[in-house]
Parts: sequence; structure tokens; C-alpha cells
Amino acid sequence: MNVNKDLQNERNKCSFNVRELTEFIDGGKNRTLERKHIEKLILAQKDELFGGTPEDYLSHKEKYERAIQTNVIILKIVQDFMRDANGGDLTNYRDVLTTLLNFVVSREGTPFALHFMMFLPVFLSQADEEQQMEWLPRAWNCNIIGSYAQTELGHGTFIRGLETTATYDAATKEFVLHSPTVTSYKWWPGALGHTANYCVVVAQLHTKGQCHGIHSFIVQVRDEETHMPLAGIRVGEIGAKMGLNMINNGFIGFNHVRIPRRHLLMKHAQVLEDGTYVKSRNSKLNYGAMVFVRVVIVFDSVNYLSKAVTIATRFAAVRRQSQLKANEPECQIIDFLTQQHKLFIGIATCHALKMTATKLWDTFNEVQQQLRGGNLERLPELHALACCLKAVSTADTAALAEGGRRACGGHGYMRSSGLPQTCAVLDAACTFEGDNTVLLLQTARFLVKVWRGLDTLKLTPTVAYLRTTLTEGFNDKWENTVEGIIKGFQTVSMRKISECVSCMAKRIMSGMSQEEAWNMTSVQLVAAAESHCRVIIISYFHEEFVKVSSSFSPALRRVMKLLVELYTLYWALDKLQDLLKYTSISRTDTEQLQERYEDTLNALRPDAVGLVDAFDIMDEILQSTLGAYDGRVYERLMEEALKSPLNAEPVNRSFHQYLKPLMQGKL
Amino acid sequence: MNVNKDLQNERNKCSFNVRELTEFIDGGKNRTLERKHIEKLILAQKDELFGGTPEDYLSHKEKYERAIQTNVIILKIVQDFMRDANGGDLTNYRDVLTTLLNFVVSREGTPFALHFMMFLPVFLSQADEEQQMEWLPRAWNCNIIGSYAQTELGHGTFIRGLETTATYDAATKEFVLHSPTVTSYKWWPGALGHTANYCVVVAQLHTKGQCHGIHSFIVQVRDEETHMPLAGIRVGEIGAKMGLNMINNGFIGFNHVRIPRRHLLMKHAQVLEDGTYVKSRNSKLNYGAMVFVRVVIVFDSVNYLSKAVTIATRFAAVRRQSQLKANEPECQIIDFLTQQHKLFIGIATCHALKMTATKLWDTFNEVQQQLRGGNLERLPELHALACCLKAVSTADTAALAEGGRRACGGHGYMRSSGLPQTCAVLDAACTFEGDNTVLLLQTARFLVKVWRGLDTLKLTPTVAYLRTTLTEGFNDKWENTVEGIIKGFQTVSMRKISECVSCMAKRIMSGMSQEEAWNMTSVQLVAAAESHCRVIIISYFHEEFVKVSSSFSPALRRVMKLLVELYTLYWALDKLQDLLKYTSISRTDTEQLQERYEDTLNALRPDAVGLVDAFDIMDEILQSTLGAYDGRVYERLMEEALKSPLNAEPVNRSFHQYLKPLMQGKL
Repeated sequence: MNVNKDLQNERNKCSFNVRELTEFIDGGKNRTLERKHIEKLILAQKDELFGGTPEDYLSHKEKYERAIQTNVIILKIVQDFMRDANGGDLTNYRDVLTTLLNFVVSREGTPFALHFMMFLPVFLSQADEEQQMEWLPRAWNCNIIGSYAQTELGHGTFIRGLETTATYDAATKEFVLHSPTVTSYKWWPGALGHTANYCVVVAQLHTKGQCHGIHSFIVQVRDEETHMPLAGIRVGEIGAKMGLNMINNGFIGFNHVRIPRRHLLMKHAQVLEDGTYVKSRNSKLNYGAMVFVRVVIVFDSVNYLSKAVTIATRFAAVRRQSQLKANEPECQIIDFLTQQHKLFIGIATCHALKMTATKLWDTFNEVQQQLRGGNLERLPELHALACCLKAVSTADTAALAEGGRRACGGHGYMRSSGLPQTCAVLDAACTFEGDNTVLLLQTARFLVKVWRGLDTLKLTPTVAYLRTTLTEGFNDKWENTVEGIIKGFQTVSMRKISECVSCMAKRIMSGMSQEEAWNMTSVQLVAAAESHCRVIIISYFHEEFVKVSSSFSPALRRVMKLLVELYTLYWALDKLQDLLKYTSISRTDTEQLQERYEDTLNALRPDAVGLVDAFDIMDEILQSTLGAYDGRVYERLMEEALKSPLNAEPVNRSFHQYLKPLMQGKL
Repeated sequence: MNVNKDLQNERNKCSFNVRELTEFIDGGKNRTLERKHIEKLILAQKDELFGGTPEDYLSHKEKYERAIQTNVIILKIVQDFMRDANGGDLTNYRDVLTTLLNFVVSREGTPFALHFMMFLPVFLSQADEEQQMEWLPRAWNCNIIGSYAQTELGHGTFIRGLETTATYDAATKEFVLHSPTVTSYKWWPGALGHTANYCVVVAQLHTKGQCHGIHSFIVQVRDEETHMPLAGIRVGEIGAKMGLNMINNGFIGFNHVRIPRRHLLMKHAQVLEDGTYVKSRNSKLNYGAMVFVRVVIVFDSVNYLSKAVTIATRFAAVRRQSQLKANEPECQIIDFLTQQHKLFIGIATCHALKMTATKLWDTFNEVQQQLRGGNLERLPELHALACCLKAVSTADTAALAEGGRRACGGHGYMRSSGLPQTCAVLDAACTFEGDNTVLLLQTARFLVKVWRGLDTLKLTPTVAYLRTTLTEGFNDKWENTVEGIIKGFQTVSMRKISECVSCMAKRIMSGMSQEEAWNMTSVQLVAAAESHCRVIIISYFHEEFVKVSSSFSPALRRVMKLLVELYTLYWALDKLQDLLKYTSISRTDTEQLQERYEDTLNALRPDAVGLVDAFDIMDEILQSTLGAYDGRVYERLMEEALKSPLNAEPVNRSFHQYLKPLMQGKL
């Protein structure tokens, strides 16, 4: 391979073994081998997957057709591999999902994501055993393709307000699904437009004249042979979006559509043949699927951010612009501290969030075990944690990817860089599966509850610091260490929650209702929930690093330690107003933090390319003119431009029709 | 018109006269009438301009063809109107430009923007009188369409490094233009792909064996009759971008292309027939065009932000979601404080930046006068000001528009909302015409120079505060008023510059070179330049408001005063870490600021819709399902979705080709 000299030079001077880090990121040597094996299978079908006109030049409709074509191929590869590897075993479901999501070859998503990310998990958590036996094997083999329809045109956040109805008719033992208004049309479900033939539909369950709130139903949408929409169903796609145009998001409306009684998912609640409603043991049990999806989103966000930083970092090593010193050759832009400031935090964030999400995942599995044993104690904590982690991770990764995109200057605006599409996916994650502001307010509600019960409640692990910090807090001597900063953040979080609670109390005293006071304090409540989340991420990152680093070689340990420090320093400086307001940090301390941050950037500089190489994203998945492994940036930009159909002709027909008459004054 | 009830209700309770504010924003009653007249002319051609398949569903090539078709119509309308209105007078050039830019009916820009925004202004500022006589009338009438080619594949920021050469051949009295490398290809010029037939090209001027640095040349690119590229020229478009896909950005390479000597723009420097180079009187005179373009960018950014906040605010009034109190109907989401927090600062920012830009524009004209008289005193200040204002305005408007987009939840991700395209334009502005980080460092360089000469230099108006604040500064009693906050920001800016200078001095003492010390301090220097810019914007906004408010009715004065306060409070809270670090503000003060901010949001709540209505952007320009004047949000979303060509058939052909074989296990 003919590699750009500057990039090769970076690789030559890297201080650690890149493969060692790759294997750590993958989760072990075998995982890396497994991944590389699938990559080989994908590359074997290179022409069909990556040939033809680049997707960016296609029309909306052509993009969808391309999506189906390529994703069917990928799905087949992953399916075959998984079958061989573990005989269809569902225990490592997240692995399957992660593998599938990692190998999405379109930069605008895949129409099969929803099937694996929502349809199957919801089925697993809400269908009873008999229903699972009936449906799961077919779904798992993709004999049917499912979607999950909850959100309506008029309802997203407030699911209690959903308008679609499912009314039980005891005479025929059927439910009648109906969409009474325009706003009740389901809107957004991925794959629903023209891909899925089945769908889990969330609707208000009515029986014996009573509404029992929202429940999930399995509904056939299209004929299995002809794919024609079934009678009474109006289905289509919702149109062009900012990104993820290959997801095939759809709408669906029901005109008194009848489905059998057993199409209500009955693991928790049931409707008997005579229409009697049997309540769920615990309405919170459905939280499981939500937590699951949110953890997956965190992993997926890391996945996309690692693409963005790989591209931006390699480009920064190849791009030469301006002189650091007069009369010297132009320097690599990665040598500018302002550039390092934009990029290295992105690298650190990938590791911080991945370690945090892994720990959350483990906790999730523990709690699932406890749930089966009837112990619901940690469910609220887990839910609160998943909410704020989803919100903070998606917001951070979106901001850092956009920062990386801008750090590539104009070229980062080219779709051939892959950056706009990557940013658009991360942007979407900030609102889907729970709007970030709403999620942070849910975490805040949990924190306020904990705060109010601080003296009496048994504190679960992630909020235990609230009590310990309270007894120490503001008067603690500030320490400019990672541990000191974490302690500082704990104090900040504790004080912010405390301040929100007093602020609400004051407002209630002055005559506001509880709800008004909550609303008037909500900007501060969001900030408090974010602070709590920062505590969790930074301390998890630090703890996990300490735990795993003993297995690292000294060289890798050194560079990973720098990343932990960089991450902590970055957030300390970013949230300095909190530290100044709520802890004993001094001006001199802040100046030292700034200087240490700048020194850490410099210390990481020689290993930057090695660090992104370790993400080991193959060119065919990265699909970036700026970020390819060989660094042939300018050649690739030109090659991609020449693929534009506009460039196939020297003069476009619009010249004769419109431009020439204009220029010759003949319009 | 059938207007959404909630929206109508908002309009009924608006406390001020919307038309009064509209006329203020337009710059007077007559301007409003003028604008409405052009709008009528545009609406008269509604079918041709807005009919057919929505642009979001078209292929890249079809988009370009649509762009030429619609923009030729618009251009003709604006041209005719301008000719009638002022007989082709150039004195109000910015008006022409603003009018043109305001009426871009595509959400992805217009290929004619560069002709008016760069080609003509550069010609005006760099061509001598004879050259202007020869070229300007044809350019002004669009008999030729021009582009401006400076940036190369390998060079953006550092224009001294441009590689394209123009070598004078005294034998034939011609320049030979040449692109020696791939990286020397011009890349990015708007309209250059397939639209422009002429171009100003920036190249290294060589004569008599010597290089005299970069100069501008007028070059014919395509035949006027056939539009075919001329011999030796390789021209095309650069491919799909994140947004602005109708701009038709192009590349161009020269293979020893000969142009007459008089195609060098000779207002400042000349090459005589024998090849003698005559130097420009002052190399800084070219700054004029750059300042001009940057002011235009600020106005244009405000224009786009006002679209985004109009859409998001109207949507927030129409959308009902969740309950503020249990058992009440769902509330308008604009009632949530978190929503007000995201939106109202956007409205205030439009006014703050517009007033600042207007003042900068006036200063620019004054300084132009002084330049003609040979007085260059204020040029560096003006340049520094334009740099940081461009950087801060584009970054702020981009962030706020994106905030507004996310505040619409999932629906803000739909292209039919108009928000993704609006955000993409503002994102582009953060890197084009000077990368924001680079621009802030230029301002910082000016500030450091001023700081070092504080005792001896005569301080120009925008930096005079550095001296006065120094003598008062940190020990000043903090005041929680707009004036007090402005003073606080002045102290912050002064102290940050001072700290940067000491930090660099310390580093130099410890052995670093001047340049290394600058680089190591550059993250802080960028922050210092931003702080300076905040001082300027907030104080200009405040001063201008005080100046103009006497002509307002009391009702309008009240609401505009609230916007000034909101803007000041917002930034005080956002930059609290600076105030805490560098001023005498207390924790109690900060709590009061927070409370006043929350109260101000509430006070503005009833007028929010009126405030965005006052921007008076007609539906055909706004092009938003979420933001249309009548608030028929859900109906429009569905109507637009049904225009997707994918929805024209119930089953897409990809089902039979790929999906069915997959589902039936026959792949």
C-alpha cells in the first residue's frame, strides 16, 4: 500500500502496540479474529456492496432500493456467521446486534436495524412463552421482518397520550385496531415504510367499555407473498430526513383492522376470551427493554464517534497548512494545540463511554437476574442511569463528531468525507428513544426523590456519594488530581440537587403549585442530572481503567492513563463554573489545571494516529476520502468528485434551457 | 385562512404591534413595502418555482437542474425590480445582495450567490477603472456569470501557500496559468462546476524570474456560446455536500492556459508590458473585500437563524405534549421552561447580531471613506472585529438553530421541516470564508498587540475598554444589571488577554520560542478573542437598543427591553466561570441572575409567537411543514410525505428482487 508519508511517520513513532489496544477494544483476541473474519466475507462481495454510483448522488427512491440490495447481503453474511458461531443462541444477543450495526455499509443506516433493535427485544420482553415459540423462530430467521410502532404524529414523549385504540370484541375474540385522527397515525417506525411485513403496535387497550392504557400488539401489515398492505391498513414512508435515509421510516394508520386476541403480547397483562382484563404484576417490568435499547444506543454512539475521530485525526496528520515558524515548511495541522483540543477529547470519550456502557450492561444483566427473583430494588436506579447516560452520551458524541467535522475545514463538509452522515446519525440519537431533555428530567426526578429521602432511604450504589459528599462537601481541601476532581464533581452534583430542591421549596412557599415550581426549576434540574451523569462517567472510566490496566503492557498503560487524565481535565475545565461555585478550588488551581491539560494534549500528540488506528475500522466501513488508512486524501477527493453524474457531461442541459437565455438577455 | 387554534390564541394575546417590529427589522416602512412587492412578483410564478417533486427527493443532478431553473426566475425578478428601483445604482449594493439572498427559494442555496457575493465585490475592489468599465456592466447584467477561485484542494487558510502559478511571458504579453499538482486544483468556488463562464483566479504571480506572491486574474472558463470548457481547462463540480447542494461548487485546473496581461486585476499592483512588477501602495487594502463579505455573512446567518426560530417557536405553540399538571389536558410545549430556554435566546440573538452587524457595516463605510483619504488607522481594528464577529455569529447561530431543531423532537429531523437544511447552511458558515478558530486567533493577535502597547498606543474605540477596565477591574463592586454585566464582561476580556500574555511570557522564559509559546497558549487565546467579541455584541445591542427605543411604542419598547435583558442574562450565566474567576460576583448574585433569567423567559412567553411573526418570512420562503403561518403541522407533514416517489407504489420492486428471497430463505 502506498501510504502518505506523514501518516506513515506517525505510525512509525507510535509508542504502544496498536494491536494490543484493538484487542482490548474488541473485547479479546478472539473477538478481533472473529470481526476480521466477517470483514473478509464482506470484502468478498465488494463489487455488489460498494460498486455503482455513490449513494450520495442517488435520488431518495434509488437510495432505498440500494439499501435493500446491500443490506440483504450483509444480513445474510452476519446471519450465517452467527448460526455457525453459536447455533442461533440468543444469550449473546447484544453481540449479534453490535456486529450487525458495526457492519452497516451504508452511511445512512439500515432498514433492518429496527427488527433487531426493537422488534425482537420487545417481543422477548413482552410476549408470553407460547407467543415467543410461535413468532420468534420466524423473526430470528428473518422469515418475517418486523418494526415497532409506538410514536404517533402527535405523540412521542408522552406515551400515555397515544391515540391509537385496540378495542376487544368478545363476540369474535378479536381486537379492533383503529386510528381515529391524523395525529394518531404511527409515524417514525424504522423499516415500516416499504420493508417490514409485521409490526408491534402500541395502542390503548379497551375492553368491556374500559380503557386499560397502552399495550403492545403484533400486527401483520403486508401480505407475505405479495407484500401488498392488508385491508384497512394505510402504510407508507414518511419522507426525506436529515440523515439515516436508508432506515425507511414509515407511517401507518388503521381503519378498524381486526387481529386475533392472542396478538396482544401477554407476558405481563392479559385479556381473557370473555374480555376480562388481567393486570400486570408490575408495570415497571417493561422498563427492561427501554434500558436495553438505551445501552445499545450508547455503544452505537461510540461506534459512530470512533469513525468521526478516526477520519478527523488521520486528516489532521496528512493536512499541512500554515507555518508554526516563519520560513519553515507548512506544518501538519495536528501540531496546532487548538486542533488537538478538538480531536483528542473525542478519542478519550470513545473509551470513557464504552467502559461506562459496558459496566451499565453488566449491571443491567445483574438487575435482570434480580428481577427474575422478584427483587425490583435497583430498577429505578438503573432506569435513571440509562436515561442520563443515553442523553449525555448522545449529546457529547454528537458535539464531538461535529467538532471533528469542523476541524477538517471545508473538506469536512463534503459527503465523500463521511463526516456529515456520521454527524447526522449522532444528531438523530439526541432525540430518538427519548428526547435528551426529557430523559435528563427523568433522572432529575429520581435524584430529587433520593435527596428527599437521604436520611431514611437505603442508597443504591450510583447515588451513595450523595450522602458521603454531604458530610464533607464544600470545605474539603481541593486536590488537583483525578480523584480530587471526581470528588469535586460529586460535590457539585450533590449541591446542585440540593439547590434545586431548595429553589422549588422557595417557589412553593411563595404560592406556586408543586408542578409550577418543578417547571420553573427545570433548566436547573436538567443541569443537575447532567452533573450526576458526569460523576458516573468520569468515575467509572477511572475505576475501570485502574481495574483493567494491570493486564496492559506498560506502554499501553501509559497512553491510556493519559486519556483518563485528559478526559477528567477536559471536563473539569469545561465545568469550571460549577467547581468555582460549589467547591474550594482556587484560581491558581484552575490555572494549573489548564496548563496540565495543555501538557497532556502535547503528551498524547505522538500517539494520536495510533490511537485511532486501534479502532481498526476498515476503509470499506469507514467510507471516507479524508480518513482512509493510506491517507491519499486529495486523490480520493478528486476521484469521488469525478463519480458525480453531473461530471459525466461537460455542459448540462440547463445551460441551453435557462442560463444562456438569461446571459443573452433573452429571458 | 384556517389557522391552528392555539397559534391564533397566541396571536390574539400578543402585547405589541407585530407590524411595527417588522418595519423596524426591515429598516423602515418603505423597505417592508418593497419586500412585499417582490414577494408578490415571486408568488405570481408560484407553479414554476414551487411545483413538481420536492427537491429533497431528487437526485444530485436533478437538484442542480432545478436550481438553475428556479434561480434564473428569481434572479430575473430581483434584477428587474432593482433596475426599476434605482437604475442599476451600486451604492446600495448590500441591499441588492440582501434582497437576492433573502429570496433564495431553494433550501440548499443558489448558484448565483458567488457572482454577487464575491465575483463583483472583488472586481470592484481590485480591478482598475478601465477594467471595471470593460467588465462590470456585463457582470452586473449577468451577461457573464462569475465565480471566485482562491481555495485549492491543498490550501484554504494559508493563502500564501497557494500553488497555482501565473507566469508572465513578455514575448506574447500574456500570463500563463498553471496547476502544477493535484493539490493546486482550485476546489470549492461556488457556481464554478457547471454554471459560471468567468472566474477570478488567485495565483502566484511570476515575472522576470521572480515570484511576487498572490494576485487576482480574470479568466474565461467556458465558451460564451457553447458553454464548453476552454482549452487547457479542466473544470467540474466537487460532488455532494452536507448542505447547499444547489451552490454548484466546482474545481478547476489549468494546463498552461494563456490570458492577456490586462487580465491581472490592476487597481493595486501592476505588471507592465515588459514584465516589470509595480508594487501595491499598501498590501492591506485588499482587506476591504474580506470585511465586506464577513459582514454579509453575519447578516445572512441572522437571516437563517430567524427562519429556524420561526419554525421552532410556531411548532412549540402548536405541539401539545405531556401534562404540566395531572388530569389537565396536554399542554403546549412552549409552556415548558426548558423549551423557552432553547428558543427565546434564538430570537434575542437575531436582534443582537443584526444590530451589531448594522453598526459594523456603518463603521465599515466610515473606514472606507478614511481609506480613500489615506487614513489606515482603523483598518486593523475593523479587520479584527470582522474576524471575531464572523466567527462568533456563525458559531452561535449554528448552535442555536441546531438547538431549535432538536427542540422540535423527531419532527425537526424531517427535511420537510426545513430545519436540517437551515442548520446545514449555518454549519457551513463556521468554516467558509475563514475557519472560525483561525479567525479568532487573528483577533487574538490584534488584542495581544494592543495589550502590549496599552501604555503608548492610541486606542481605537472597540478596545478602549481595555485601558479603563484595567484601572478598575477585579475589585469593582459587582452589579446585577445589564450595565454591570457588560462591565463584568469587559473585565473578563481584559484579564483573559492579560493572562494569555503572561502565560506566553512564562513559557518563553522557560525556553520556548515565541511561536511555540503562542501555539501552546492558543486554546486560551481563542477564548480571549471570544470574550472580547461578547463584550462588543452585548454592549452594541444594549447601546443600539437605547438609541432606537425612543422611537418605539411603549409596548414594543417593553418587549425589546426584555430581549436585551434575556440576551445579557443568558450569556452571563453561560460564561459564569469567567465571571466567577475574574470579577467580584458572589454566589448569591449568580443565584439571582438565574432566577431573573427564569422570570424573563416567563415574561417573554406570551409574546414569543408575535416576535417570530415579526420576522415576517412568507411560507414559500420558509418552506416548512412545522413552521407555516397557519400551524397545520400534522396535515402538512402527511401531505409532504405523500409526495415521496416511494409512496407512489404500494410495493417497491426491491421486494421481489431481494426481500422476498431473503424472507423465504432462498438467498
